[in-house]
Amino acid sequence: MHTKRIRFPGLEKRLMSAQEAAELFRDGMVVGMSGFTKAGDCKAMPAALAERARRDGLSITLITGASLGNDSDGVMAEAGLLARRMPFQGDATLRRKINAGEVMFIDQHLSETAEQLRAGNLDAIDIAVIEAVAITEDGGIVPSTSVGNSANFAQQARRVIIELNLSMPAALEDLHDIYVPGPRPGRRPIPLTHCGQRIGTRAIEVDPARIAAIVLTDSPDSPSTILPPDAETQSIARHVVGFLQGEVDAGRLEPSLLPLQAGIGTIANAVLHGLVGSPFSGMTMYSEVLQDSAFDLLDSGQLTFASASSITLSERRHQAFLDDVERYRSRLLLRPQEISNHPEILRRLGLIAINTALEFDLYGNVNSTHVGGTHMMNGIGGSGDFARNAHLSIFVSKSVAKGGAVSSVVPMATHVDHTEHDVDVVATEWGLADLRGLAPRERARLIIERCCHPDFRDELRAYFERACAQAGGQTPQLLGEAFAWHLRYRDTGSMRP
Amino acid sequence: MHTKRIRFPGLEKRLMSAQEAAELFRDGMVVGMSGFTKAGDCKAMPAALAERARRDGLSITLITGASLGNDSDGVMAEAGLLARRMPFQGDATLRRKINAGEVMFIDQHLSETAEQLRAGNLDAIDIAVIEAVAITEDGGIVPSTSVGNSANFAQQARRVIIELNLSMPAALEDLHDIYVPGPRPGRRPIPLTHCGQRIGTRAIEVDPARIAAIVLTDSPDSPSTILPPDAETQSIARHVVGFLQGEVDAGRLEPSLLPLQAGIGTIANAVLHGLVGSPFSGMTMYSEVLQDSAFDLLDSGQLTFASASSITLSERRHQAFLDDVERYRSRLLLRPQEISNHPEILRRLGLIAINTALEFDLYGNVNSTHVGGTHMMNGIGGSGDFARNAHLSIFVSKSVAKGGAVSSVVPMATHVDHTEHDVDVVATEWGLADLRGLAPRERARLIIERCCHPDFRDELRAYFERACAQAGGQTPQLLGEAFAWHLRYRDTGSMRP
Repeated sequence: MHTKRIRFPGLEKRLMSAQEAAELFRDGMVVGMSGFTKAGDCKAMPAALAERARRDGLSITLITGASLGNDSDGVMAEAGLLARRMPFQGDATLRRKINAGEVMFIDQHLSETAEQLRAGNLDAIDIAVIEAVAITEDGGIVPSTSVGNSANFAQQARRVIIELNLSMPAALEDLHDIYVPGPRPGRRPIPLTHCGQRIGTRAIEVDPARIAAIVLTDSPDSPSTILPPDAETQSIARHVVGFLQGEVDAGRLEPSLLPLQAGIGTIANAVLHGLVGSPFSGMTMYSEVLQDSAFDLLDSGQLTFASASSITLSERRHQAFLDDVERYRSRLLLRPQEISNHPEILRRLGLIAINTALEFDLYGNVNSTHVGGTHMMNGIGGSGDFARNAHLSIFVSKSVAKGGAVSSVVPMATHVDHTEHDVDVVATEWGLADLRGLAPRERARLIIERCCHPDFRDELRAYFERACAQAGGQTPQLLGEAFAWHLRYRDTGSMRP
Repeated sequence: MHTKRIRFPGLEKRLMSAQEAAELFRDGMVVGMSGFTKAGDCKAMPAALAERARRDGLSITLITGASLGNDSDGVMAEAGLLARRMPFQGDATLRRKINAGEVMFIDQHLSETAEQLRAGNLDAIDIAVIEAVAITEDGGIVPSTSVGNSANFAQQARRVIIELNLSMPAALEDLHDIYVPGPRPGRRPIPLTHCGQRIGTRAIEVDPARIAAIVLTDSPDSPSTILPPDAETQSIARHVVGFLQGEVDAGRLEPSLLPLQAGIGTIANAVLHGLVGSPFSGMTMYSEVLQDSAFDLLDSGQLTFASASSITLSERRHQAFLDDVERYRSRLLLRPQEISNHPEILRRLGLIAINTALEFDLYGNVNSTHVGGTHMMNGIGGSGDFARNAHLSIFVSKSVAKGGAVSSVVPMATHVDHTEHDVDVVATEWGLADLRGLAPRERARLIIERCCHPDFRDELRAYFERACAQAGGQTPQLLGEAFAWHLRYRDTGSMRP
């Protein structure tokens, strides 16, 4: 079966086991692996490299697209393989090691890793490990369910290892559009002007001589673990859909809106799901990941095209998609994350960007990454790329967490990933605050009344009034008590008085 | 004299006094005025409008390019004219009113104001007031020493008032390149691929029927008030120049570097001045403002081209430039701030961006705007546009302020304008920390040892060690004492123990 998948003459000689391929690695190497929000990650090499770590003490810097599936990050972290890790992760074991200071984690805007590698701001990739569905007649690597940073890794690495996943349908070929910006100075504009436009090649072009190993696999992607919409996320969705309807009514948006982006996770998925059956049609999507909701909108016919860097679906959806790729072929493209998240393109297209906040403060500063200001959750991902350059930057969150013990709307964010400058709208299940054109004190009043959970509203209002009276300024804060809620939670298990 | 300057037939009939033109304004209007870092601001209308505010209680939203000169913001604020002000300011009186909550100040990335106006995210401009050196045969408005948002204001406003400044040399014509991105969807790539490229028109194209008034003026721009380099800023400059030399030696940069950007102010000017006589040559600049140092580099022959949105010089330099524009004509272009600061262009060109921090923390999060976390200084300006999209994002600051009572390197920034994700290098007079590819805990060690003033180093080191031990996490912080230094300063007048 793999002979149809390895079409460049002679390359089948490089077939070997993952264990054999793992012998190519040396201590201290920088390794680039495919994988973006659990899609298109390598299935065999992580375990083989973990085995080398246990046996020989191998330790590497691992750079991926984004998070991996199949517990790979946990297996590798547990084995002590990962000295450094970037630009994103989502694994409980690795997270624990990062927060213990045992793995150095560099949290990056997902559009920037490739640029920084190319510029030499990061050490160059020694070995790239890429999941593929085929190697073309010309030696081109055809990625599977994500592109991520794979093109950049493969083009920079001295050696490339391919994981040829025979369980991925060959029909995934032609779903990818590979474009890599040229060197500076002299770089040309990226020619993309609409979501469905092809600007690159159908496979990652590398010199086949650098393909050092081909490993056969047949494990599937890990399914998405997002939760179905609940009453609160549906309420958030209603607020956002209502807001967008208001923008259409005011003539600021067409009924086809502008290209949509939605962050990974349950809440953003629910918001997008809330558009199913809405009056909007002819919509497009330009996002980094397509979740179930994107396919709901493709199926409802409201979404005419979806561009992203990965497809991460629930188990049922995933299998249905792989069984019937043809059905979506004309309305889907997967691009390098540098392109799906590129400031040049995002600013040009003018997205409606919907991302999830861990907490946000009175003034609309957003914490997307650090629980309690110290402990990494997953990473900033693409949220900064999108929020900064969007036509409308919307952040959503449930108003409380931990069974109501924690308010997501706080006096001061304990860590800032997105500053007030990059946040146009915030919404919880209680309401939506349209912050456009408002000064910080005006933003505060709106956020308190519209978004804060009623149980915390009085105390937040009182804090704001005290801050105005005692500290004053453009952005009134009381430095002596700005984190009092968080300290109370640490000491008592609840932010409640 | 003005007849050569008003070349569109019949327009001289719209000549009137500033007082007459001020009668065109109605309460609640949104007014767009030229002016960027004191250059090319309107000289007569601010006082005339302030008079209307005193007489009739006129109150407006004022949007400019950036800061105004001639105490105009102070005069207008004092008269009660300014209900809302964006996107930047630099005036002591206005600052006081903003921090008292009397003027609503919306602090914006300077690239974004025009985009938000066009998108309807901000209320539309009613009247544009633009300083010009001429009105062309076609009715085009030729700006003076800055472009700022003037093209966007003039094209959106229902009425345009021109301040024709007869003291500005006619030789300023042909120095401008006016390009406005098209509507979405369907926007085309901005074709600019090198600093010196012309992509637009030489004047702002408007329907002359909308030019409602022409007011003659002859006052000069306010001179820049930056201080000359001192021992500390020279030391910062040496560290930055040494770092860039290291990048050239490592083969990551050519001796012509990449296009330079330097923020407004004494320190960034000193750093750029530090390049005079350096081994670098054939350099270019793609910045928002050109200060004395840019002209020093043009004069030394090391700078082959400088593109910006404004020219803000010391009194001596300013007059010398205006007396001899021809000398610089072939090496200068002034662009709309949307273009000088545009993410698309900045990411494409790959700048070396040098901006000033008010304070930065252990982990490289930068506060550019809020003294003590509450009180607005000037605004974020273009620093976010540049820091986010640069090839190298460098922030500079003296290590202490207020005669040594205040450390600029703090446990936690009291307000975050630039997150760790957007900061590659920080430097004070003590040294430079190259943060590329480092995790937060690694960044902290380097920032303490290289950048913190020795008087604060032990305490900062102790804080960091305590935070690692007691809180842990990706970014160790002690929420109960993160602002202890700031509170000590508030209570004792010094951060010192």
